[in-house]
Amino acid sequence: MKVLAINAGSSSLKFMLLAMPSEEVLTSGIVERIGSSVGIFTIKVKGVKLTKEAAIATHKEAVEMLLVSLIENKIIAKVEEIEGVGHRVVQGGEAFKTSVVIDDQVVKVIEDLSDLAPLHNPANLIGINTFRNLLKNVINVAVFDNAFHSTMQPETYLYGTPYQWYRQYKVRKYGFHGTSHQYVSQRASQLLNKKNSKIIVCHLGNGASIAAIKNGQSIDTSMGLTPLEGIPMGTRSGSIDAGIIEYIANKENLSIKAVTDILNKKSGYLGISEYSNDARDIEAKIKQGDPLAKLAFDIQTKRIADYIGAYYLQLGGLDALCFTAGIGENSALIRKGVLNRLKVLKVKWDEDLNSQTRGQETLISTPDSKVKVWVIPTNEEVMIARDVYSLAQKS
Amino acid sequence: MKVLAINAGSSSLKFMLLAMPSEEVLTSGIVERIGSSVGIFTIKVKGVKLTKEAAIATHKEAVEMLLVSLIENKIIAKVEEIEGVGHRVVQGGEAFKTSVVIDDQVVKVIEDLSDLAPLHNPANLIGINTFRNLLKNVINVAVFDNAFHSTMQPETYLYGTPYQWYRQYKVRKYGFHGTSHQYVSQRASQLLNKKNSKIIVCHLGNGASIAAIKNGQSIDTSMGLTPLEGIPMGTRSGSIDAGIIEYIANKENLSIKAVTDILNKKSGYLGISEYSNDARDIEAKIKQGDPLAKLAFDIQTKRIADYIGAYYLQLGGLDALCFTAGIGENSALIRKGVLNRLKVLKVKWDEDLNSQTRGQETLISTPDSKVKVWVIPTNEEVMIARDVYSLAQKS
Repeated sequence: MKVLAINAGSSSLKFMLLAMPSEEVLTSGIVERIGSSVGIFTIKVKGVKLTKEAAIATHKEAVEMLLVSLIENKIIAKVEEIEGVGHRVVQGGEAFKTSVVIDDQVVKVIEDLSDLAPLHNPANLIGINTFRNLLKNVINVAVFDNAFHSTMQPETYLYGTPYQWYRQYKVRKYGFHGTSHQYVSQRASQLLNKKNSKIIVCHLGNGASIAAIKNGQSIDTSMGLTPLEGIPMGTRSGSIDAGIIEYIANKENLSIKAVTDILNKKSGYLGISEYSNDARDIEAKIKQGDPLAKLAFDIQTKRIADYIGAYYLQLGGLDALCFTAGIGENSALIRKGVLNRLKVLKVKWDEDLNSQTRGQETLISTPDSKVKVWVIPTNEEVMIARDVYSLAQKS
Repeated sequence: MKVLAINAGSSSLKFMLLAMPSEEVLTSGIVERIGSSVGIFTIKVKGVKLTKEAAIATHKEAVEMLLVSLIENKIIAKVEEIEGVGHRVVQGGEAFKTSVVIDDQVVKVIEDLSDLAPLHNPANLIGINTFRNLLKNVINVAVFDNAFHSTMQPETYLYGTPYQWYRQYKVRKYGFHGTSHQYVSQRASQLLNKKNSKIIVCHLGNGASIAAIKNGQSIDTSMGLTPLEGIPMGTRSGSIDAGIIEYIANKENLSIKAVTDILNKKSGYLGISEYSNDARDIEAKIKQGDPLAKLAFDIQTKRIADYIGAYYLQLGGLDALCFTAGIGENSALIRKGVLNRLKVLKVKWDEDLNSQTRGQETLISTPDSKVKVWVIPTNEEVMIARDVYSLAQKS
């Protein structure tokens, strides 16, 4: 069974085609700048990236272009070979605890949840509607970014805010990156070969979150109602004193929206370093001795360690600590900055091995470490394809 | 040397008169509703509370009333016996790392810092100015609520917000309850009789904060730029996703100020339980089986444990955990709720001893506990008097 894993943004569409259940990746790529005068279509064919520029007015045109390209490049012989499409959906609210087959009712619920994810859910829906219209008789599955965190308990997902805000507006912690946290923790659990496992996953990309996974279930995670909460990220501040918003709004005569935008888009690495949101740039600056760049990393790794400490107590111990996503997989400096703060947990790791590890599954802890430390490349597309395959078997 | 310890609010004035260095409490009391038609003056004389109602127009009248009362009740023979006055000041910003003798320059700096503590510093200053005018030739000392936390490192006190906000507006974590955290941790350090001590203090009152104290120095604390950050409290939400402010402002058509006010005054125990901000009321409701009251306690104790986990890593271990302030000293239920979450740290405590302990210095951990757990009544007034006495010796 060939399955497309789709991540649709407002002007982009990421795709990967997999053969299931073998999980062989047949191709992957991205359509960018949909709706602007020059769109960009990129597809990987036998390890080579092919790029094409053209006006791509709508997501429908983008998908049509993709289907034509799959045939032209002999990745499939005909469109009917695609038997399932899995769609990443950011916000499933409290409605979905697992992935589901998409029907009109599901579309309606995802629409209703747009309120909680105004930037993401409407874009995800465009992808869903396009595929439902173009490929008839194909199973479409929604895979929610927060479903994996639906196992959190009320004492964890509720804030110290008026209960009425939860009752009426569903203000609570949802968490994100669930598909990644699930994939990486499942892999770590396999590697541990242990039944009752206590795992912490650090998903560190331009967006970043930490999750505590006990016996396969997420019990806590650092992102909240929105992706702003938690550790400082590329451009996001992470958790702050909520009193800062009023203080800065008064000082700079800004609206709530303007201050919240700064917290989302001009903070984190970018705001502290006053230079870049990209971890690679920050790392280069640190090597040149730049103090603000160093501060940006120190502030982040300090907060990551704080979450690890909190989750260590919640889990009642720790079997494995996993680093994943762009920065987690590739930045030895960030990993070192975190690991240096974990001495009391008797975490020991191989300095050389850590330095050399980039994007490869690697055990970087030493045999005498009390906690296994792994770098595990994430693979949200495989998770999506697995859910499509499994739901297709049942339906 | 007789020393007055003063805590001046906008319409109140708390006082305690101590003999130093013996630390004997000669009297204490409070003047309330200053400026309203019926003021209330309360003073403790030989263990008995005397209350007087009268119009008290200004803080000057309140202090005059206090001085007359001290003589009338034969606590002092003449005003000149008072040789020093210590004033609690909430916000010392980055200007003061210890208590200081007050002169015109110090008054000016406290005034300038009112921006960061608009509700507190101006009130504290009224107290200072009143005593400086009424008692000439007396040493006046300012004791800052955040000075004890001035030993925090930049990676701890800086947020993931634009560095420019720190440079220009001094946006950073300051922390509060410093005098209490210092008093309790010093007492715990004495009791531990250990040179390099690792201590966590849970100051749990209607306002509440946690601090990590390593070798006598505060290395982290849960309150931030304002007292809103940290754990949920009587009416404060504690830390939340900063994105909630915009979300709720849009939903309810509220200003930043209105939302921030709800977070400060209508959240925490009050907001979650929809009943009361008073821990005793919540406890009574829990005994009746009320689920929201239980949730209010669970949400708080979960967050307290999270801070303990984070600080355990930062301290690199833990010698003593201390509970103090109104709730910390008196609520066995809250202490139990926290201690139940610390099993992995090998914290063991005596259930009966915990239940019986109210406001008495008590070691509630068992001999085989890896961490000593103490209930230690706080005493900010003694700390203030100590600083006045010590600065008087030097000057």
